[in-house]
Amino acid sequence: MNVVTIVGSLRKESYNKQLADTMKERYEGKLTIEILDIRSLPFYDQDEENNPPQSVMDFKEAVTNADGVIIITPEYNWSIPGVLKNALDWASRVDKVFIGKPVMTLGTTLGALGTIRAQMHLREILASPGIQARQLPPGGNEVLISFANQKFDEQSGQLADEETLKFLDSKIEAYIQFAKSE
Amino acid sequence: MNVVTIVGSLRKESYNKQLADTMKERYEGKLTIEILDIRSLPFYDQDEENNPPQSVMDFKEAVTNADGVIIITPEYNWSIPGVLKNALDWASRVDKVFIGKPVMTLGTTLGALGTIRAQMHLREILASPGIQARQLPPGGNEVLISFANQKFDEQSGQLADEETLKFLDSKIEAYIQFAKSE
Amino acid sequence: MNVVTIVGSLRKESYNKQLADTMKERYEGKLTIEILDIRSLPFYDQDEENNPPQSVMDFKEAVTNADGVIIITPEYNWSIPGVLKNALDWASRVDKVFIGKPVMTLGTTLGALGTIRAQMHLREILASPGIQARQLPPGGNEVLISFANQKFDEQSGQLADEETLKFLDSKIEAYIQFAKSE
Amino acid sequence: MNVVTIVGSLRKESYNKQLADTMKERYEGKLTIEILDIRSLPFYDQDEENNPPQSVMDFKEAVTNADGVIIITPEYNWSIPGVLKNALDWASRVDKVFIGKPVMTLGTTLGALGTIRAQMHLREILASPGIQARQLPPGGNEVLISFANQKFDEQSGQLADEETLKFLDSKIEAYIQFAKSE
Repeated sequence: MNVVTIVGSLRKESYNKQLADTMKERYEGKLTIEILDIRSLPFYDQDEENNPPQSVMDFKEAVTNADGVIIITPEYNWSIPGVLKNALDWASRVDKVFIGKPVMTLGTTLGALGTIRAQMHLREILASPGIQARQLPPGGNEVLISFANQKFDEQSGQLADEETLKFLDSKIEAYIQFAKSE
Repeated sequence: MNVVTIVGSLRKESYNKQLADTMKERYEGKLTIEILDIRSLPFYDQDEENNPPQSVMDFKEAVTNADGVIIITPEYNWSIPGVLKNALDWASRVDKVFIGKPVMTLGTTLGALGTIRAQMHLREILASPGIQARQLPPGGNEVLISFANQKFDEQSGQLADEETLKFLDSKIEAYIQFAKSE
Repeated sequence: MNVVTIVGSLRKESYNKQLADTMKERYEGKLTIEILDIRSLPFYDQDEENNPPQSVMDFKEAVTNADGVIIITPEYNWSIPGVLKNALDWASRVDKVFIGKPVMTLGTTLGALGTIRAQMHLREILASPGIQARQLPPGGNEVLISFANQKFDEQSGQLADEETLKFLDSKIEAYIQFAKSE
Repeated sequence: MNVVTIVGSLRKESYNKQLADTMKERYEGKLTIEILDIRSLPFYDQDEENNPPQSVMDFKEAVTNADGVIIITPEYNWSIPGVLKNALDWASRVDKVFIGKPVMTLGTTLGALGTIRAQMHLREILASPGIQARQLPPGGNEVLISFANQKFDEQSGQLADEETLKFLDSKIEAYIQFAKSE
């Protein structure tokens, strides 16, 4: 199963990036994960949507060709980062590349609430008519990794907390089953 | 009263831009409205927040110096545009320039729901610890301009619907009173 | 297909009740609609959930036996009515009777926004671990009937607006297809 | 300062009730807290709102006479309990007894997220035109008590976790200052 991953944080040492890297390695046998570049996209402008720059075309093509999309997001100001929303704004127009695509959302944060508010906004966005992703149902499947600094290994830059990794394993399995179920 | 305005849409003929232009002219005696450029901001990156580019410093300084902020937003995929969220992400860090600032939100759309979902997300964002704007209470004060193509004049590019203009007048008045009340 | 319907309004002349009645009659050949009594339920009390009163057992049994559930809700204070939430609270415990059940939500209101906020809350509730309904995806499928007093016939107490009825027909069809698809 | 408190849980040993009891005792010198009965209210019915039963009149009168309202809520199915929403539905009609009333919301739960979703719904409800409470701004002021079973003392039925109590002290102080500020 070929999956593309979008990470909402741009900073180099981002825990959410580290989560993407951890997953890429850990689930190698099951999922081929490609992390997409969303930083090089310009801001969405409707005047350009029918003739977008190459970066937008590349992004949309990568989503189109993938069997699924995994979105890993930090929480900024009780919502998702602008850079992530901007990528989704491009994806929602003209050829709506997310329609019917199996999508899983995850997030990690230093705080106690594990990006819940960001993911709540994200799920509404993913359900909208221009996106219409086929979302892994959240009830029982939420991946909200709190207190990131206690769960990632500073040396390796990998998610290292055993309990969290086991939980993640089970949710990735749930996502794979879900993606294959249609 | 000196107010800065942020418009969430980038396209040239945007109804939300036209709403900003209409307000700038119509309320000239009461409000000095400066429309801020948010397109030239880069994507927020935590690694750069302590030493941001000039565009970010200019944006934050303009908000700091203003007596209030008016945010005019379209609705993209049941939320606010990435470009608007990105501006708020910069504003929420280091010197948190929105804290205590009187803020009003408005939006217009071709659809029936008048950007309600975008504004609901926006209000949560504006209440978060990094923003903490002093928001005009939404109960009874929402400005949700639906069916924009019937209410704006194609020639002049101005909001022209009389009933909507009267409603807008009363809400701008409510905002000015609110801003002055503390 | 046997469907149970829950109506969130208790007043006699409720437009939402009239919508339920209209649907019961109009879709007679396709759907057998039974309108459930939720007024006779007591307030949910965890101390009683393992030994609930007969009204609760009857309500849960009706949901269990149905092929699907249609929820028709007014909007009270930007959310769903207490009486509707209470019924869902009972349903979410012990034997969780909504799990996997195909659910459609609709609503009508005198106002312009067609119960959107109530339905947004409702959809989050329906996705929670204790409910886990299989919801008709909202993107493109929302039934938000605004300005009810212009669309219902005062004499017959039926939804009478032709455009709205056609729209409703297509969404009921979408729901039936969705319910049968698994 | 005379405050009325509404507790969203009905079970006898409810942690949220225990939180109310803890606060009543702990803040005795600063706040006189009266816990209101909301279980005896019937379900809201618009047909009865102009001539409501005595229990509704008593409830509304208590809110009217109070200097502020503290709402303590569990989270049921990612929202507030039906019994709490029902009380607010009555309060929102005819004489709208919450308008301008200083309100603080709190909640405790066995889970990790501390009733955040319930409180997010609750804050939207409290901002609606029929309620228009004057809410303590949530940014920096949220009281989300997670893992309740580790923080309450089983013998005394009191909140006993020192760190949580100190945090609570500071938020109660913030609320009192806020309530007095207008």
